[in-house]
Amino acid sequence: MVKRVSIVENILSANDQLAANNRKKLDASNIFSLNFMASPGAGKTSLIERIVKSLADRYKIAVVDGDIATNLDADRAASAGAVAVQINTGGECHLDAVMLQGALKQIPLNEIDLLIVENVGNLICPSSFKLGTHKSILIASTPEGDDKPYKYPGMYQGVDALVVNKIDLLPYITFDMAYFTRGVEILNPNLITFPISCRTGEGINCLLNWLIDNLET
Amino acid sequence: MVKRVSIVENILSANDQLAANNRKKLDASNIFSLNFMASPGAGKTSLIERIVKSLADRYKIAVVDGDIATNLDADRAASAGAVAVQINTGGECHLDAVMLQGALKQIPLNEIDLLIVENVGNLICPSSFKLGTHKSILIASTPEGDDKPYKYPGMYQGVDALVVNKIDLLPYITFDMAYFTRGVEILNPNLITFPISCRTGEGINCLLNWLIDNLET
Repeated sequence: MVKRVSIVENILSANDQLAANNRKKLDASNIFSLNFMASPGAGKTSLIERIVKSLADRYKIAVVDGDIATNLDADRAASAGAVAVQINTGGECHLDAVMLQGALKQIPLNEIDLLIVENVGNLICPSSFKLGTHKSILIASTPEGDDKPYKYPGMYQGVDALVVNKIDLLPYITFDMAYFTRGVEILNPNLITFPISCRTGEGINCLLNWLIDNLET
Repeated sequence: MVKRVSIVENILSANDQLAANNRKKLDASNIFSLNFMASPGAGKTSLIERIVKSLADRYKIAVVDGDIATNLDADRAASAGAVAVQINTGGECHLDAVMLQGALKQIPLNEIDLLIVENVGNLICPSSFKLGTHKSILIASTPEGDDKPYKYPGMYQGVDALVVNKIDLLPYITFDMAYFTRGVEILNPNLITFPISCRTGEGINCLLNWLIDNLET
């Protein structure tokens, strides 16, 4: 008899268990939590800065930043007013539940209302690893092009909300919003979508209201 | 005695051997070959279209497109005038030497002068897997932000040339070229760099001249 060890499945199953533990910890402290995923440079950090600056007088916010290298993102989140923890993954292309577990130990959970996890900039790998957060948000960026839902279906299928950032650049690029939206609809029908510009602030209020709704329920 | 099997190292070593085989095959047919890597939406496909359209009357070009899903990119390369092969990786976040080996079997190598491989849109994983191509080119995109060399050092360290695309958007975004260049210099001193706009055509000629130089030597 040949024994086949399915290494990838075992890793994912272990990750799921740790993700469930993270969720329990977050729920015990009554924290609403988000996993922000996107390509490199889609605007995750800028959006987190906007959210923290807008909500910091009302809610206590923690940010966990995942990057291959540097503390640049956590520094920006901290400057904006959040409790910030940087995870440097070395070469790893995604965060996983173990990494978040470690980060949560560095946060005074009982003082926090909202946890935002900024995943590694990558439109593929992070979608396979649950962290235990309540909602996953994908940030698309208009200069990336309108074909991304078709080409990265796994990421678009697995998320609870979609932010379309850099709409201020639409006059200067080729981006067919109807084609983009059709792709999203096929993969994730009725996905709540927020077209925004982090640069100008356009559309940010709708996203903030959605966040506040989730924080208050 | 405990035996430890280093799976990742074994996979990479097997990949290196197959990459060397691919290189031999390419050299035997006197083909100059490039591996294009970038974030999703940085402009790999648009740049390949430009190159194929500009050089197709002078050289016979093959394009191998790696994507999670769809034939969109290979269709564009074929329309531009290349022999195009699409690899759909399923969920895989990068191309590897086995995938290129399979694609090369579908190309009439003795008729080809230039092979362009378009890797999966990902600023992390593709840098770990050699394909056997002669040169690796990274395409950065200005709306991704000026901090990318600092945050994705592995990719910037391993390439032979850098294209900075979408310079036509510089007036509308925040991008400190000196800060970006400083990051590149630390990781990959004297890296040959081509600032371009695929949209307007600015800077494309310098890149084409570099390609022709490599094709003629």
